[in-house]
Amino acid sequence: MTTFGDSLMTLRDTTPLIHCITNYVAMNSTANLLLATGASPAMLHATQEVAEFAALADALSVNIGTLSSPWAEAMLLAARTAREHSTPWVLDPVAVGATRYRQTVCADLLALKPSVIRGNASEILSLNGLAHQGRGVDATASTDDAITAAMALAERQQCIVAMTGERDRVTDGRVCYSINGGHPLMPRVTTLGCGLSALVAAFVATNPDAPLNASSAAVACFAAAGERAGEAARGPGSFYVALLDALYQLTPDELNRFAQREVSDAL
Amino acid sequence: MTTFGDSLMTLRDTTPLIHCITNYVAMNSTANLLLATGASPAMLHATQEVAEFAALADALSVNIGTLSSPWAEAMLLAARTAREHSTPWVLDPVAVGATRYRQTVCADLLALKPSVIRGNASEILSLNGLAHQGRGVDATASTDDAITAAMALAERQQCIVAMTGERDRVTDGRVCYSINGGHPLMPRVTTLGCGLSALVAAFVATNPDAPLNASSAAVACFAAAGERAGEAARGPGSFYVALLDALYQLTPDELNRFAQREVSDAL
Amino acid sequence: MTTFGDSLMTLRDTTPLIHCITNYVAMNSTANLLLATGASPAMLHATQEVAEFAALADALSVNIGTLSSPWAEAMLLAARTAREHSTPWVLDPVAVGATRYRQTVCADLLALKPSVIRGNASEILSLNGLAHQGRGVDATASTDDAITAAMALAERQQCIVAMTGERDRVTDGRVCYSINGGHPLMPRVTTLGCGLSALVAAFVATNPDAPLNASSAAVACFAAAGERAGEAARGPGSFYVALLDALYQLTPDELNRFAQREVSDAL
Repeated sequence: MTTFGDSLMTLRDTTPLIHCITNYVAMNSTANLLLATGASPAMLHATQEVAEFAALADALSVNIGTLSSPWAEAMLLAARTAREHSTPWVLDPVAVGATRYRQTVCADLLALKPSVIRGNASEILSLNGLAHQGRGVDATASTDDAITAAMALAERQQCIVAMTGERDRVTDGRVCYSINGGHPLMPRVTTLGCGLSALVAAFVATNPDAPLNASSAAVACFAAAGERAGEAARGPGSFYVALLDALYQLTPDELNRFAQREVSDAL
Repeated sequence: MTTFGDSLMTLRDTTPLIHCITNYVAMNSTANLLLATGASPAMLHATQEVAEFAALADALSVNIGTLSSPWAEAMLLAARTAREHSTPWVLDPVAVGATRYRQTVCADLLALKPSVIRGNASEILSLNGLAHQGRGVDATASTDDAITAAMALAERQQCIVAMTGERDRVTDGRVCYSINGGHPLMPRVTTLGCGLSALVAAFVATNPDAPLNASSAAVACFAAAGERAGEAARGPGSFYVALLDALYQLTPDELNRFAQREVSDAL
Repeated sequence: MTTFGDSLMTLRDTTPLIHCITNYVAMNSTANLLLATGASPAMLHATQEVAEFAALADALSVNIGTLSSPWAEAMLLAARTAREHSTPWVLDPVAVGATRYRQTVCADLLALKPSVIRGNASEILSLNGLAHQGRGVDATASTDDAITAAMALAERQQCIVAMTGERDRVTDGRVCYSINGGHPLMPRVTTLGCGLSALVAAFVATNPDAPLNASSAAVACFAAAGERAGEAARGPGSFYVALLDALYQLTPDELNRFAQREVSDAL
């Protein structure tokens, strides 16, 4: 069995090329989070080139944050290409519950079978409702409901669902890992979740046959680095700087020790 | 009377949802400045969803920095919705004096009655000329001219004008507050003014019936945090990091002490 | 002869206005890198205003990173205007070898005679192949090939080529300067090369009659600041912060001493 540390080492040795179609807020930080960890980001979205490039990339990460028509078209083109080439792709359904437009686009993207869905509890609940009933679901449901929704969504979509929050959960619909760590400052820095989605793509690219393990490794990597970054941070500004440094410094051994301590399959 | 510290406390307790339609350069830093202070940012601009979302948000912040046709359309749609729902909205007329296109779009936006206009002296002069004469005004006019313009613009538009620079001024056309503080490194970091516009929206959302007071609180909050950030900064890189930390750390008491020392209604 | 320190001093005294049409990932960091060094950035791209503004700017920097049709149109309009006004303009052909679309747009831009081309070895090789044969060239060619390509491209296009990597080269097709310095963390921070392209535009704006010298000054400035930033950095997060501080703190004397030690015309 591949340890999380093995996955991190493979990622650094192979520097997978991650095609990111992500929102304007997250582009810079996503590229920096990937580079700090050891992957190679590429941001491009023109319909003239998006399929050509998706065919070259080692994984694709699609994030609907600042969605609009030309971008939605590019996302669908790229996801379709990824699927044709058996390239893993990750869907980050930002604020899918907020507007009907997001629900429509996400329904189209779900039909293209993402390898992994990464979102917060509200987004996973909305997305599961969407897959199930064709509409959004109240985001104020309890955490227990969210876990049930995450597992149901993973099973129905035959994909991995990585649901992040105070405690992170990663599931394939049967097994569900629980990952502690991170830091309370993380939600005070914008688009860290968006960056994590791209990092999940990078880890899955290095281990496409074990997406549950690879997604969990990415989530654990972020949680471990976040924990370390929080030790010296004086606020969200210094936290973000320290997080990039921590992702760069994190060793495979440290990640394995973190996983032994903080990852379990007990809900 | 609500103190600035009270406003900051209310903002943190209610975490107002601020819909930002802003420029590409400012998106990430605006989101981070809002999160650090305690508000909740949302960046979206598709014409398919912008009205639906503006109706949900606690305030709207519109910034024309990297303007183009689809964005101008979204700004007008969102501002119209905000007005219909009596949701406060802030206009940041970036470089309005620079091109005819900016003047045309700003004239359309002014007609939708922003609650607050936040800009530098050149922008306020241009905007006042535009409101008055339908064209731009020379940006090299003196500071005295700018204060007169700010007050005239506030009176004509029946809104608050927050004009920032070495010394900040906030006026409703009758009263004009003068706010010292900040740091000489602030203009060496990009889009801090854009972020302040969104922070003004967040403060006005928490106190919509007293927009002069709320806008002044936002400006003072920024000036106080900027002063503190400047103490340890070695250049614009460390200044920005320290500013986010300072906005996060700033207590209501410190903000009130700062206001007592640095805010006056003497021009 | 103007020293690099003289150029830096002139840049700070005149704060040239640099019109940047660049990619979404790079916008914020490019603005910050220019401001830290002492130039004045402006990001705008609407076809309604791009020519009007390019006519006012002291230099133009075009970067094709997150290309799409409306942006390509804006780039061509702005470059044409720059040329008509004898305003220096810089082309950054990001990933030109990756897709046919990038090659088509770059061919159109090359026809508008950029004053400087700034890219990495792969991009310069691709661009030279494009200028030469109308198609991309394998990016795995050796460094010697890249230098030959850089000189050939500079000669054919009658422009400066600044090729950056572990060792930077700046050539007008006859003379080729070699610049050491920088730091291994630089490629672990996103869009530093994009920012350097805009900094080249700023230096050339201050000394348009000596573009080889001015481009070399910009590259040396970045290399000197990068070297200093690397001394205290613990990873890519703190490196970027320190780089902005170092560009701000760098004195003309320090830049001249760096140049004496690290710049040569020996390949």
